[in-house]
Amino acid sequence: MIKISIQGARGSFHDIVARKKFPGDSEIIESETFKQVFEDVHKGLTDYGVVAIENSLYGSFLENYDFLFKYDTRIVGEEYMRLVLNLIALPGTKMENITEVYTHPLAMSQAEEFLDKHPKMRRIEAEDTAAAVRLIKGQDLHTAAAIGSTLASEIYGMKILARDIETEKKNYTRFLIIARPDTPYDLDADKTSLVVHAKNIPGALFHVLKCFNDENINLSKIESRPIVTSRAWDYNFYLDFEKGLNSPATQRALKELEKVADRIRVLGSYKRDDKVDEQ
Amino acid sequence: MIKISIQGARGSFHDIVARKKFPGDSEIIESETFKQVFEDVHKGLTDYGVVAIENSLYGSFLENYDFLFKYDTRIVGEEYMRLVLNLIALPGTKMENITEVYTHPLAMSQAEEFLDKHPKMRRIEAEDTAAAVRLIKGQDLHTAAAIGSTLASEIYGMKILARDIETEKKNYTRFLIIARPDTPYDLDADKTSLVVHAKNIPGALFHVLKCFNDENINLSKIESRPIVTSRAWDYNFYLDFEKGLNSPATQRALKELEKVADRIRVLGSYKRDDKVDEQ
Repeated sequence: MIKISIQGARGSFHDIVARKKFPGDSEIIESETFKQVFEDVHKGLTDYGVVAIENSLYGSFLENYDFLFKYDTRIVGEEYMRLVLNLIALPGTKMENITEVYTHPLAMSQAEEFLDKHPKMRRIEAEDTAAAVRLIKGQDLHTAAAIGSTLASEIYGMKILARDIETEKKNYTRFLIIARPDTPYDLDADKTSLVVHAKNIPGALFHVLKCFNDENINLSKIESRPIVTSRAWDYNFYLDFEKGLNSPATQRALKELEKVADRIRVLGSYKRDDKVDEQ
Repeated sequence: MIKISIQGARGSFHDIVARKKFPGDSEIIESETFKQVFEDVHKGLTDYGVVAIENSLYGSFLENYDFLFKYDTRIVGEEYMRLVLNLIALPGTKMENITEVYTHPLAMSQAEEFLDKHPKMRRIEAEDTAAAVRLIKGQDLHTAAAIGSTLASEIYGMKILARDIETEKKNYTRFLIIARPDTPYDLDADKTSLVVHAKNIPGALFHVLKCFNDENINLSKIESRPIVTSRAWDYNFYLDFEKGLNSPATQRALKELEKVADRIRVLGSYKRDDKVDEQ
C-alpha cells in the first residue's frame, strides 16, 4: 500500500489533495511540519508527499521553495484547490456559546471578517485546521469551535455551524505532489519546474527568460530565493513553464539556458492541473 | 525636529539605520508593527519611516512589499547593513546562570548554532531584539539574556556576554527610508523602484524586463506578489533598477514599458547604497 506524507492532520486540506490524487488504497502519514514531509519522501520512508506551494492571497510558501532545493525529491504532480473554510464544533454546541476559536494562523486571517462580527470568540492559533477540529473533539470542548474543512468535520464526527466563512472567496492554493528523485518522468507531462542560478552577467534574469520566450514557452511562475555565496546578494530562480521536459522546444530552451546559467536543476515535469477544484 | 518612525524599540537595527541616515536632531517614534510605520508616514504623523525590505538569508519581507503598494508613501533612500548579534544581559549576570534567552524569531534562528551549544538557555520569542533587551532591564531579570545590537546594549546600560554570535556572518539586511508621497525626487538618484502590472499577454514578464535590458539598465531585484483580480493567479511585479528616474534611458524604458504594462507606479528614486555597513 502506498504511503503519502501530508503536512497536518487527517482532514486537513493536504489530506483532501492526497485523497483526490490517490483515490485507491493508501496510508496517510501525518507530519507536523513541511520539513518532515520532505525528509520522509527524500529518505524513502513514504512514497509521496503533498505540500502547499502557493496561495493566491498569501503568496508563496517560501520555506517549501527552499526545501525543494535542499531535499532530493521530484515533483510529480500539482493540484489547484479553492479552500472552503467552515466553523466547526461538537454536535450540540450553539453558535452563541462559543468563546474560543482554534485554527491555523492563515485560516484565521482569512476568516477575519467573520470573526470580527463575533467578538466574543477569542482566537487561538493551532498547528493546522484539522488538528484544531481534532483538539475540540478530543478534549470535548463544548464552548469552542475550529475553522477547517468539511472533510475534517466529517472525519471527527463534528457539526458545521457556519459554511464558507472566508472573507475572500478567490482563495486558491496550489499544492505539489513530490516523490523520490528516481521516479520516472510522466510522458504526458506538459508542465516543468526548475531552479536556475544565472551567471553573474548584466541582465542575467532577462537572458534566462529569453531562452523560454524564444521558444514560445509560457512561464507561469517565477520566484527568487536568496542563497549564501561569495556574492552578498545572490538568488536562485524557480521557474514553472507550460511545456513537458521531453518536448523539443523545452530541450532547445534548456540548451540555450546552459549558456546563461551556471546551475540548472529540473525539479519535476508533470501534468498541468487546469481546473480549480472546490474544497 | 524631524520625526522618524521605526519598527521596534530604541536600539533596534531600524534605530541604527535611522541614526545613520539622520545624524542631526530627530525624534525616534517606536512602532510595534511595520503597518504602523507605513500608516504614520502616509498620514503625515511622522516625516520618515525605516523598514526592512530584504535579508540575504531570510529573503524578502513580503508584508512590506504589500504595504509599499497599499500605502501612498515614497522611497527616498536605502541602507545595507550587516546585522551583528550579541548576547546581552544585566551587568553581573554570568553566562552559566542564564536559563532564558529573549529575541525576535529571525534573530533566534540566526543564532541557532550558538544556542544549540547552550542547551540550558530556553528560547523565548520577543517582538524585536531591542524590546527583548529592554524587557530584561525593566524586569531586572538576572538569569535571562537577550540577543540584540551593540547599540541596544549601550542604550539600556547592559553588558555584552558574547559578541557576533550569528551562525552566518553574511547576514545582510536592506532597509528602505520612506517619506510622504509629495517628497521631491532626489536629483542625484541612481536607483529606482517601481511596481508593474503586466498586460495579460504571453511572455509578459519577459517583455517587461526587455524594456530595461534594451536600455542596458541593470535590474537589481525582482519580486512578485499576488493580487486579487478577476484572474485567479495575478501578480504585481516589484522591480529595482540601477538608474535614476530622470535619466533619458529610464524615460525611454518607461515609455516602452507602457506598451506591455497596464499599471506602472514609481515607488521612489533615490541614491544607491553601495557599501554594506557593519552593525
